[in-house]
Amino acid sequence: MTELLPDEPLHRLRERRSAKWQRYGPDVLPLTIAEMDFALADVVKDTLADAVERSDTGYVMPGVLDEAVAGFAERRWGWRLDPTAVTMTLDVNAGVVELLRLVAKPGDRVVVNTPVYPPFFDWLREAGTVLHEVPLQDGRLDRPAMERAFASRPAAFLLCNPQNPVGRVHTPDELRFVVDLATRHGVPVISDEIHGPLVLPGATFTPLLSLPGAAEIGVTVMSASKAFNLAALKCAMIVTGSPRMRDLVAALPPDTAWRAGHFGALATAAAYAHGDEWLDRLLLTLDDRRSRLAKLIRDRLPSIGWRPPEATYLAWLDCRSLGSGDEPRDLFFDAGVALEPGTRFGEDSGYLRLNFGTSVEVLELAVDRMARAL
Amino acid sequence: MTELLPDEPLHRLRERRSAKWQRYGPDVLPLTIAEMDFALADVVKDTLADAVERSDTGYVMPGVLDEAVAGFAERRWGWRLDPTAVTMTLDVNAGVVELLRLVAKPGDRVVVNTPVYPPFFDWLREAGTVLHEVPLQDGRLDRPAMERAFASRPAAFLLCNPQNPVGRVHTPDELRFVVDLATRHGVPVISDEIHGPLVLPGATFTPLLSLPGAAEIGVTVMSASKAFNLAALKCAMIVTGSPRMRDLVAALPPDTAWRAGHFGALATAAAYAHGDEWLDRLLLTLDDRRSRLAKLIRDRLPSIGWRPPEATYLAWLDCRSLGSGDEPRDLFFDAGVALEPGTRFGEDSGYLRLNFGTSVEVLELAVDRMARAL
Ligand SMILES: Cc1ncc(COP(=O)(O)O)c(C=O)c1O
Ligand SMILES: Cc1ncc(COP(=O)(O)O)c(C=O)c1O
Repeated sequence: MTELLPDEPLHRLRERRSAKWQRYGPDVLPLTIAEMDFALADVVKDTLADAVERSDTGYVMPGVLDEAVAGFAERRWGWRLDPTAVTMTLDVNAGVVELLRLVAKPGDRVVVNTPVYPPFFDWLREAGTVLHEVPLQDGRLDRPAMERAFASRPAAFLLCNPQNPVGRVHTPDELRFVVDLATRHGVPVISDEIHGPLVLPGATFTPLLSLPGAAEIGVTVMSASKAFNLAALKCAMIVTGSPRMRDLVAALPPDTAWRAGHFGALATAAAYAHGDEWLDRLLLTLDDRRSRLAKLIRDRLPSIGWRPPEATYLAWLDCRSLGSGDEPRDLFFDAGVALEPGTRFGEDSGYLRLNFGTSVEVLELAVDRMARAL
Repeated sequence: MTELLPDEPLHRLRERRSAKWQRYGPDVLPLTIAEMDFALADVVKDTLADAVERSDTGYVMPGVLDEAVAGFAERRWGWRLDPTAVTMTLDVNAGVVELLRLVAKPGDRVVVNTPVYPPFFDWLREAGTVLHEVPLQDGRLDRPAMERAFASRPAAFLLCNPQNPVGRVHTPDELRFVVDLATRHGVPVISDEIHGPLVLPGATFTPLLSLPGAAEIGVTVMSASKAFNLAALKCAMIVTGSPRMRDLVAALPPDTAWRAGHFGALATAAAYAHGDEWLDRLLLTLDDRRSRLAKLIRDRLPSIGWRPPEATYLAWLDCRSLGSGDEPRDLFFDAGVALEPGTRFGEDSGYLRLNFGTSVEVLELAVDRMARAL
């Protein structure tokens, strides 16, 4: 039987110097930034420790990841991608911005489904493009609204699959609908699949490019950084599946690949090649946290509405009964729990995003503080 | 007495998985990419090993470097910079590209002195700008040509100080000339000072912004990545010294700071705060390699001309007597020594760049192979 990952004690988490743990003082439990609080997979830890020991701190070697990416995609999702069609980049955000620059001109519109990971709005602006918002309906694609949006000929559709913050996995049927729409209207689709490996028990992930016809109009940006907690190390991948999209990616600035972190590439290669067992344990652990949180909310925070996610370690909490805008966020922050306000995700009412990729200790303490605040 | 840094044996260097050591097969000695072959400073190694051990692999905390940068600049160069005017970025190349985007419109000209680090040409293109080349004269700024270039109102001057590949340190007098010119013509100066900490015994580094008036027109991009060999980890800094330039940098895309690597920031903070002694040993070691190379060239490669650099671990070899264009590069490559062809640096005749940041063993073996090839 597979065991859950061990929890790190809170005092050790507080020693972390990453943004999640440093942003607030010691009185606050940070359930904001999407980093996890588990220890690294041994295979990743050993790879990094070895690289440090050997002072192997020079530039990344482009191409080192290709086979590992392809192997992982095939084993986990049955997606046979062409290893020569993998381009490294430093992170998902830079990868998306560079792709937007290639498919859109300044002022062009880009379709995005909201609520969504807040930097999406910044990326569009950074690439000089304009948001064409198509809100999700009850967490799912709004097909008629998508039809209308695509018919207006936007420059691109930036898809988030699985969708952060709602945690929904787009179904094969929904994705086929997207492929059909994009093909008919000639709209390129950039698919941010960073949460793909974090699909929890009960749901199945479909990579966009694994669908018939998708490779002609789609390009995927993926990374091991969420699932294996490697944000520190800077590595992501752009993947294509057709000559047309490969030509597009070939026009990326030549420095794109050099910007990736060599430690990120080493860790990613190790994680993709030898991390399956750890990842399976992680998914069970997140499943455990998801059930615990459901029970905790039922018992202690009944005024909060929540549909547990199919993927990610992010909970999108409906706190509209507690106030609008940032009021719920401020209420819980004053009680010592930092949560992301839904307003940042393009949601005007009182939602909150809670990061449950943490220990039982932190989760229970946080809910306790939240319950006392009410 | 300060001891030189110990050399790493060649078989251990060959285990490195960075681009320098992986790009060519085991028959080739790679003296190309600007990574060094020494072991990391202990303080850096310990910091990284500790971060790995603690699984501290989340996002970088913006602001963590500010005090360390300021301390280092003041101790090493007497430059008192304002710690609140430090902005992290992932590397020098991305920092320069983003700054170019802020000061120049597509199609604008940017002044660059050649020969220069080849990606400068790519960065200009990436920012949509056009090269306005002002060749160095005998390794120094050509003042009349610079006068003419600035009078033509370019959008910016991208300075490389110290200058890669020639290894010259621009003097205070030259830099005052630049400040005066830039002020008179209203041309912003972006100063790439990545090699600043690598000024060798016999020369002195002057940070641009330490000069009177410079902060009004200049912005500096620096990094610990060359001097402490941290290219793998992705961290650099943009520094300003006036409200005007600070406002400029405030317009950088919001994701700029998040793109820096957390490991890079941890290593940089450690290096800047506690790395002086190691850096001093490194500089003596590079001084030693520089003298050895001078002697080796005199004795074994008399047809090659070389003026040893004042800074960097890069030797700019005049191989014009061996052929033009890439001929000298090909000649030595066939003999098992990879060197950067001068053509990449904007030099049309037979120059080569050799990386002497390596062991005595590698340096002697390389020169031996080169001598046999002739
Ligand atoms: C949907 C989504 N895309 C991208 C990112 C950020 O990825 P990166 O750090 O590689 O830019 C996140 C981080 O949480 C995310 O949720
Ligand atoms: C002058 C100069 N600038 C920038 C760089 C690259 O810096 P980074 O890796 O931070 O982009 C180098 C690397 O050798 C360099 O010589």
